[in-house]
Amino acid sequence: MDTPLDRLTEQFRRLPGIGIKTARKLAYYIVQEPPERVDAFVAAIRNAKETMKFCSVCFNLSSQDPCPICSDSKRDHSVICVVETPQDVMAIERSGDYHGVYHVLHGALSPLDGVGVEDLRIKELIQRLNDPEVKEVILATDPDVEGEATALYLARLLKTAGIRVTRIARGLPMGGDIEYADEATLAGAVANRQEM
Amino acid sequence: MDTPLDRLTEQFRRLPGIGIKTARKLAYYIVQEPPERVDAFVAAIRNAKETMKFCSVCFNLSSQDPCPICSDSKRDHSVICVVETPQDVMAIERSGDYHGVYHVLHGALSPLDGVGVEDLRIKELIQRLNDPEVKEVILATDPDVEGEATALYLARLLKTAGIRVTRIARGLPMGGDIEYADEATLAGAVANRQEM
Repeated sequence: MDTPLDRLTEQFRRLPGIGIKTARKLAYYIVQEPPERVDAFVAAIRNAKETMKFCSVCFNLSSQDPCPICSDSKRDHSVICVVETPQDVMAIERSGDYHGVYHVLHGALSPLDGVGVEDLRIKELIQRLNDPEVKEVILATDPDVEGEATALYLARLLKTAGIRVTRIARGLPMGGDIEYADEATLAGAVANRQEM
Repeated sequence: MDTPLDRLTEQFRRLPGIGIKTARKLAYYIVQEPPERVDAFVAAIRNAKETMKFCSVCFNLSSQDPCPICSDSKRDHSVICVVETPQDVMAIERSGDYHGVYHVLHGALSPLDGVGVEDLRIKELIQRLNDPEVKEVILATDPDVEGEATALYLARLLKTAGIRVTRIARGLPMGGDIEYADEATLAGAVANRQEM
């Protein structure tokens, strides 16, 4: 029973967060769509794959090099926000409050998964600090084990370079509920309490 | 901000069950994959779309015409199981217990969505009943409002043709819990109780 439909299902299943049932549903859907919509889908994949490259400065995904953020003179180039993935850049940009630039590590330190210092864009981050304009690095790696370890490693490394290093705040999310918050979040929120 | 990545995100978002967050995740994932994996994905889409056609007998999706089920002489061609979609054929085939043939309606009657009798493969089903070999039609449309209405309509239509018409049983699913069953399911399970 290895039909072209099964093979398409397998391809969908490889994608993150897609289980076997969703993969089957998507494969059946695609096959039953009008040809022009399938063509548009394939063209969008090809176009995105061919035009989106990594910015040679911050390693964010962009169709330009340097990316629009790195080449924007209105942004504050004295602050570099270090994140794990291009998706993180997009999330912070959507929040609309940050006006500095970014540096995408493309992962977090994870010895168990074989991800070490040389697998991340850390060397390139250090090189950017040679620019005397840079005054602060904000560590915005995820608040999980790997992200915390990466932040700790970078904090030690960058402080020796005499630069201001900060870490994004941890606390209760907006709309969150104290009753249902996990212990680590709640402990962090109390420890990081602020004057009113 | 209409980048090739945004356009790919939009394409993923069109697919059933894919929200904006999943669409973004998939678009970012695809763009960061090795080119050969993206090529394999695109080839699988193209191949499935080009080779999978509707069987001219039962209207199931297949790369052959008639499909392997319709052309299998070991199957019982006297029983036709009527379903809404090709996915339903696959689900019943996986259960492994049915050895008759199928007829795919490609939808269910839904006046509110503008789906009428002429939009489904009902005419083609009636034509198949001209074959004197056909003894029974099993109505296996979904147990929801549209599926029930379709089953009711077909039952009336087919009974006038003097053919045996049955409906798949409703009841509690295996591993189900009486306490959490909805009223309609429970009422149906009691009404359809069987001797032990």
